[in-house]
Amino acid sequence: MGSLCFTSVAKADGVVERGFTVGDVPGVLWSPASGPAAAALVLMGHGGGLHKKTPALAARAREAVTRQGFSVVAIDAPGHGERPRTAEDEQVRADFREAHATGDRERFRSVSIAYALSLTERAVPEWQATVDALQQLPEIGRDAPIGYGGGISLGTAIGIPLTAADPRISAAIFGGGFFVYDELLAAARRITVPVQFLLPWDDEHVDRESCFELFDAFATAEKTLHANPGDHRTIRWNGVDEGFLARHLS
Amino acid sequence: MGSLCFTSVAKADGVVERGFTVGDVPGVLWSPASGPAAAALVLMGHGGGLHKKTPALAARAREAVTRQGFSVVAIDAPGHGERPRTAEDEQVRADFREAHATGDRERFRSVSIAYALSLTERAVPEWQATVDALQQLPEIGRDAPIGYGGGISLGTAIGIPLTAADPRISAAIFGGGFFVYDELLAAARRITVPVQFLLPWDDEHVDRESCFELFDAFATAEKTLHANPGDHRTIRWNGVDEGFLARHLS
Repeated sequence: MGSLCFTSVAKADGVVERGFTVGDVPGVLWSPASGPAAAALVLMGHGGGLHKKTPALAARAREAVTRQGFSVVAIDAPGHGERPRTAEDEQVRADFREAHATGDRERFRSVSIAYALSLTERAVPEWQATVDALQQLPEIGRDAPIGYGGGISLGTAIGIPLTAADPRISAAIFGGGFFVYDELLAAARRITVPVQFLLPWDDEHVDRESCFELFDAFATAEKTLHANPGDHRTIRWNGVDEGFLARHLS
Repeated sequence: MGSLCFTSVAKADGVVERGFTVGDVPGVLWSPASGPAAAALVLMGHGGGLHKKTPALAARAREAVTRQGFSVVAIDAPGHGERPRTAEDEQVRADFREAHATGDRERFRSVSIAYALSLTERAVPEWQATVDALQQLPEIGRDAPIGYGGGISLGTAIGIPLTAADPRISAAIFGGGFFVYDELLAAARRITVPVQFLLPWDDEHVDRESCFELFDAFATAEKTLHANPGDHRTIRWNGVDEGFLARHLS
């Protein structure tokens, strides 16, 4: 799909942030500024409409680097961030806005799911090519354990089929905040690695029961459901088990 | 209700374990073997049919002492452990066994709730007298923050009304595994301190929805629901935020 090219580098507070491309896909890699090889590689997905350097994502990434010695990578999903939008992307966004404006919840749900399926089909091979490329770096290599580090919403809609498809991923953080559909449940049933599932308890669009069905679908006994009050935009996470990835990626 | 009398003392692995009575109520206090005053006092409730030194409870208590410098106290609930059973206790236990043996779920539920209400009415003032007495000890005193440290089931049925009644308790761990009833919901609505709520995801007797109703009832935004697969006897907790009490009792 293309080779790894670094496009920028900045160092601050013990973290090296490098912009890169793999083929057409732009990404960012946060790594420890010093020390030996990365303890693990963590893949972070961004939410719908956001991008690889969204402040909340970048803050979590830097924390994972400085506290746990991980390298963290994020890439722009198709049609997001620096990436061009196809005619389909533009059409879906227009449908989206219209369904939201008219308050047609059923249409909003069906448009969201169709868009997620289209994005996933493109994003999963892009993530896999990104991992292939990063595994060529000496500080990562083929031995660093790999985890999927969230987040909720679109990051989960893409992360679940990615984790189901890629045996290199050995622990994953997913969450609610997105509609649950048959293809997502089918992918969850193929996941056997430890899962931490973060649920905004009062999401206005996504009903809890569908998220419970998704949690139940993961084919692993090593799974935890963590909920805090709030919807997927207002949630303030607290009491999350911050050691989850470190425990399972060592 | 009675003064504090120590009845035994044993020291092992950095933990002093002292048996005591406050009036008729026998208890056990685990404290750091050395060092200054306790960082906090944690009250631990045992499950139905169990007692103050149930192995799982004692293990959690010792861990809280050695890892976090807490003092931990447990007392026998009325009719449990070393305590005599009243005619009512014997009758309820007989009803209990019968309802369980005949598989009459509705009767099992109503007997369980009646028994919990009877136990709570006696146990709440016993816990409060125990705390009064322990606050006279120089190594605890009136300044040590107090938390309710669980556990699920009967420990929650008693702990919720206790926490609602006693403003000295400033953070609490509760959980599922017990039927939810109106008096318990009413008490939960009076709780405004941070709550960690541990839910066995697949309890055979208690339906999830009733536990969600209980979680929703706590009148605090600082609450976390944590679920792992299993019922309340087979559950293996993992990924629990072990720093919850330490954060809120400092």
